[in-house]
Amino acid sequence: MNFLKHLQWRYATKRMTGAKVPTDKLNKILEAIRFSASSLGLQPYNIFVVENAELKEQLQKIAFNQPQISKASQVIVFAVWDNLTEERINDYFERVKEIRGNYPDNMQMWKNHLMEKITKNTPEENFNWLARQAYIGLGTGLAAAAIEEVDSTPMEGFEPAKLDKLLGLKAKHLRSVLIMPLGYRDMENDFLVNLPKVRRAENQFIQFYL
Amino acid sequence: MNFLKHLQWRYATKRMTGAKVPTDKLNKILEAIRFSASSLGLQPYNIFVVENAELKEQLQKIAFNQPQISKASQVIVFAVWDNLTEERINDYFERVKEIRGNYPDNMQMWKNHLMEKITKNTPEENFNWLARQAYIGLGTGLAAAAIEEVDSTPMEGFEPAKLDKLLGLKAKHLRSVLIMPLGYRDMENDFLVNLPKVRRAENQFIQFYL
Repeated sequence: MNFLKHLQWRYATKRMTGAKVPTDKLNKILEAIRFSASSLGLQPYNIFVVENAELKEQLQKIAFNQPQISKASQVIVFAVWDNLTEERINDYFERVKEIRGNYPDNMQMWKNHLMEKITKNTPEENFNWLARQAYIGLGTGLAAAAIEEVDSTPMEGFEPAKLDKLLGLKAKHLRSVLIMPLGYRDMENDFLVNLPKVRRAENQFIQFYL
Repeated sequence: MNFLKHLQWRYATKRMTGAKVPTDKLNKILEAIRFSASSLGLQPYNIFVVENAELKEQLQKIAFNQPQISKASQVIVFAVWDNLTEERINDYFERVKEIRGNYPDNMQMWKNHLMEKITKNTPEENFNWLARQAYIGLGTGLAAAAIEEVDSTPMEGFEPAKLDKLLGLKAKHLRSVLIMPLGYRDMENDFLVNLPKVRRAENQFIQFYL
């Protein structure tokens, strides 16, 4: 398969048809996100898959009424840990121990490193670092969707506080950072569908030290 | 192709053999990064491809001497705009105009939105937002490398100020945020190579609103 062709086919879809993404394709996209990289493998975020029509309508309202949302098959919400906590760190190391039997020698060093962040950094600093990890998941999810020929829209343009309220994220100590509608491009009504991709030239984006 | 199998094959390689990644594979990985998504398509970062052996040695020293770096075929450095500037925003809109002929109606709105960020946000706030975009590129690059059966290591563990100095990034108004060695796993000496992947269970990571 030609990964680059899939990436070139992908674009931030602004109008969708309302057609349904089949479950097997959806699951492949979700699994790709679950298997994407994150610092230490912490996976410091949860994803919420909104398929409920009424909830999509409400989501659209708090995303500046962008119409791809209600016409998406599902909308994936990336919600990041609002902070590091001892409990979250312990959970992670317990999971590593369970799956791998025992730690490599340097695990205690990593644990100390994370524990230090709780006291050394502000919650906002920790959140900002953790939020970046969700963007790796987004990158992987966009690629997975394109490979499945499912359209998607990477979106930061919404009101996080309202979304957090809508999904009860505060009680879960999560903060929404990204949403990603999944569906099928509306060829007749999406102004973006036929416009060429805009990218910086290779020699302005990449520099080699040979 | 089975994207998920590629993602499961991938791991953060801690020991590499020193074998060379062929140019055609390297180029596919770099193109995947160049074609990855970013907010508005701004691509607010540059990538530096370090193949020079001496420079890799220096890079390893400022990355807590992690040995995969000098044994990588190439090390990709992601360096993000240190701030938004009027010049960078104008460059972007000029490029859109050049490639697409003319703007859709809402382009002026987007331009105003970006211009506002220059005065409304601190440089650090803008940098933090822009840095997230590089992580989408990292996610795409890791996937591209895995598809090419090239190993890679997503790394935040290095001293950014020293790396910025080494590559003269400050003068370019860039700040390093990520490095990504590319190469081939050393099956005999990498403690991670045979350990199973640790991931949160589906039902702890994903929640559905049907």
